[in-house]
Amino acid sequence: MENVKVIIWGLGAMGGGMADLLLKKKGVDIVGAVGRGSKIGKSMYDYIKTERGDRPDVIIGSPEDVIKKGAADVVLTCTDSFTKTAFDRLKFVLEQGINVVSSAEEMAYPMAQEPELAKQLDEIAKANGVSIIGTGINPGLIMDLLVVTMTGCCEEVEHIVSRRVNSLSPFGPAVMVEQGIGITEQEFIDGVKSGHLSGHVGFHESISMIADAIGWKVEKITQTMEPILTDVDRKSPYGFAKAGNAAGCAMKGYGYVDGELKIEMDHPQQIEPEQVGVQTGDYVIIKGTPNINMVNSPEVPGGIGTIAMCVNMIPHIINARPGLYTMIDLPVPRVIMGDMRDLIHPEAKIVK
Amino acid sequence: MENVKVIIWGLGAMGGGMADLLLKKKGVDIVGAVGRGSKIGKSMYDYIKTERGDRPDVIIGSPEDVIKKGAADVVLTCTDSFTKTAFDRLKFVLEQGINVVSSAEEMAYPMAQEPELAKQLDEIAKANGVSIIGTGINPGLIMDLLVVTMTGCCEEVEHIVSRRVNSLSPFGPAVMVEQGIGITEQEFIDGVKSGHLSGHVGFHESISMIADAIGWKVEKITQTMEPILTDVDRKSPYGFAKAGNAAGCAMKGYGYVDGELKIEMDHPQQIEPEQVGVQTGDYVIIKGTPNINMVNSPEVPGGIGTIAMCVNMIPHIINARPGLYTMIDLPVPRVIMGDMRDLIHPEAKIVK
Ligand SMILES: NC(=O)c1ccc[n+]([C@@H]2O[C@H](COP(=O)([O-])OP(=O)(O)OC[C@H]3O[C@@H](n4cnc5c(N)ncnc54)[C@H](OP(=O)(O)O)[C@@H]3O)[C@@H](O)[C@H]2O)c1
Ligand SMILES: NC(=O)c1ccc[n+]([C@@H]2O[C@H](COP(=O)([O-])OP(=O)(O)OC[C@H]3O[C@@H](n4cnc5c(N)ncnc54)[C@H](OP(=O)(O)O)[C@@H]3O)[C@@H](O)[C@H]2O)c1
Repeated sequence: MENVKVIIWGLGAMGGGMADLLLKKKGVDIVGAVGRGSKIGKSMYDYIKTERGDRPDVIIGSPEDVIKKGAADVVLTCTDSFTKTAFDRLKFVLEQGINVVSSAEEMAYPMAQEPELAKQLDEIAKANGVSIIGTGINPGLIMDLLVVTMTGCCEEVEHIVSRRVNSLSPFGPAVMVEQGIGITEQEFIDGVKSGHLSGHVGFHESISMIADAIGWKVEKITQTMEPILTDVDRKSPYGFAKAGNAAGCAMKGYGYVDGELKIEMDHPQQIEPEQVGVQTGDYVIIKGTPNINMVNSPEVPGGIGTIAMCVNMIPHIINARPGLYTMIDLPVPRVIMGDMRDLIHPEAKIVK
Repeated sequence: MENVKVIIWGLGAMGGGMADLLLKKKGVDIVGAVGRGSKIGKSMYDYIKTERGDRPDVIIGSPEDVIKKGAADVVLTCTDSFTKTAFDRLKFVLEQGINVVSSAEEMAYPMAQEPELAKQLDEIAKANGVSIIGTGINPGLIMDLLVVTMTGCCEEVEHIVSRRVNSLSPFGPAVMVEQGIGITEQEFIDGVKSGHLSGHVGFHESISMIADAIGWKVEKITQTMEPILTDVDRKSPYGFAKAGNAAGCAMKGYGYVDGELKIEMDHPQQIEPEQVGVQTGDYVIIKGTPNINMVNSPEVPGGIGTIAMCVNMIPHIINARPGLYTMIDLPVPRVIMGDMRDLIHPEAKIVK
């Protein structure tokens, strides 16, 4: 069998990390990279950590130049957070008859906020005989798929809390701005109002995924966003918060079923949590038969986790029958330690 | 759509518990129960906790009387631990064109110890247009599927430890005997030699499932079994261990890849662990990128967990295309809080 052929669209932190990871794996080749502006015509290796060495070069091109019928088995799209902004790109790939893994948060469960676009993506995928999924660490695993999995050993579930307490210290300048690191309380409040602080995108997706999976009809989802004001100065590689200012952003999400609060999301993100004695971790707390009281500490790092999830879902989405999928529709993700080709059904391969 | 129709074969602790659970769920009916000996002709309600009330009775019958073509959508078989002893029963159900969920430990990954029988089951299932899976709490979730799921957010994995520290106190007399509760060290050693102490069945299955999922070629699996000798008298509802005797059974399993120990299973089971300060829990410890350090404490109870897993997999196995499945081939299990019919594809329904 030919190696699995992958194109990466968007060589930022995630797409670049996926390139580095794929270059370490067996049975898979990066056959194209899509960028824009001044990146076009440059080598992919200028934008990732791995040295080119004696590998054939991969020249960054426009979508029309790179993504052509039969060019690859899958395109990893790592450009967006929102289904609406990603839609035309996803459609373009599907129409070239190539499978898609997207890192866009809303694409982890697009039926939550964009049911009409989700329907269209499903139809376009089916019309072109390919499949598409959105995944990542969160949404994608920690605050949703892992919760669903643990309900699998429950006879009944009454209430769910999913908590992710994580450190923003490893992240770069863009994340510092989006999460309001270093700004005053008033600036934070204004930023939330104006929509300049995006915080975490994904509660609607995670809550809807859990509820749909277990058969709860969620009638209302709300969320709140507060600054985590620090008592002491905190400094991370790309962030600084003076005592009194925001060292992070605490988001909570609430899903209601029959007028009752049934699903709670609790996601405080901050720089240097250790400095103030905050233990980071991923928590699944289910009130049911039996109760579940699970923690992974420290948390799965968001960057590595998302890079791994997107790459590890490649075989599943190539093998899937045509259509739009979410993480609750396919077998669980798993690290790929062998040859990726061993995981591909021959009849599902595009580049024979 | 007609309610999902279920037959239960074996009304012991597991089968009986599944009956009780199914009677609380929407969109599903128990249409038959299979027993043997003096149970035949009696009411299922004599052997479960739920009162019959004004429900139609379910009379326990022989397999030939109860399991007939078109009689049900699925049979839950809860009679055995081993693929070999279960085989004729599983074959019989499949040949009546009915799907199967089995609680037999070896059936969680029958290709590990009975590859020839696994192949036959796959062929028989396909020839009859139905599907079959083995599941339970362990093997089935805690020491295998959950581990695989957590590797899904890893770029690389070097070493895996799966630990389940659980209490045997809720279990009955049969388990006390199988696990050697109360016997002397010498009796324990003799019991291991003679094969009278079964201990935990499932390490071959869990290790093979993890290794196959992530692409490690396991060349050797070994296991050890030691008594947990108690310093103090310990007493549980059905067990008693005098100081100096066995209060439990500690099993370890080892999976080797390329001569290196890569997968470790650690499963000490005992009565009254709290009495000696042992904290029970389920642990997933992965050395990789990133490391995973997960615990669910206390452990998911084995009985409830197995009952839930088998019931919760009913929709998945009805919907699956014909063949033999394991937990790594199907979407994750999930509690069923709505109407079970909402989860069934109409074309997969047997009893229309
Ligand atoms: N689900 C999850 O858990 C999860 C986790 C992490 C990230 N994400 C999401 O995944 C997306 C990517 O994350 P990131 O950290 O890699 O962001 P990033 O570092 O900002 O990278 C985004 C990349 O996409 C490129 N791009 C954007 N629009 C493009 C277009 N039209 N054509 C070609 N290239 C385009 C950008 O190129 P330029 O440099 O030319 O602008 C940039 O290289 C984000 O939306 C992020 O929120 C999700
Ligand atoms: N994977 C897991 O995590 C997991 C967890 C729990 C249990 N298990 C396994 O599941 C199986 C059932 O467990 P359990 O606790 O329910 O055991 P149990 O209480 O001993 O019940 C077994 C039942 O099967 C019946 N049975 C056996 N052979 C039969 C036959 N040929 N025809 C009709 N009925 C038959 C027995 O009936 P009689 O009373 O007539 O003998 C008994 O009612 C065991 O093998 C156990 O090891 C697996």
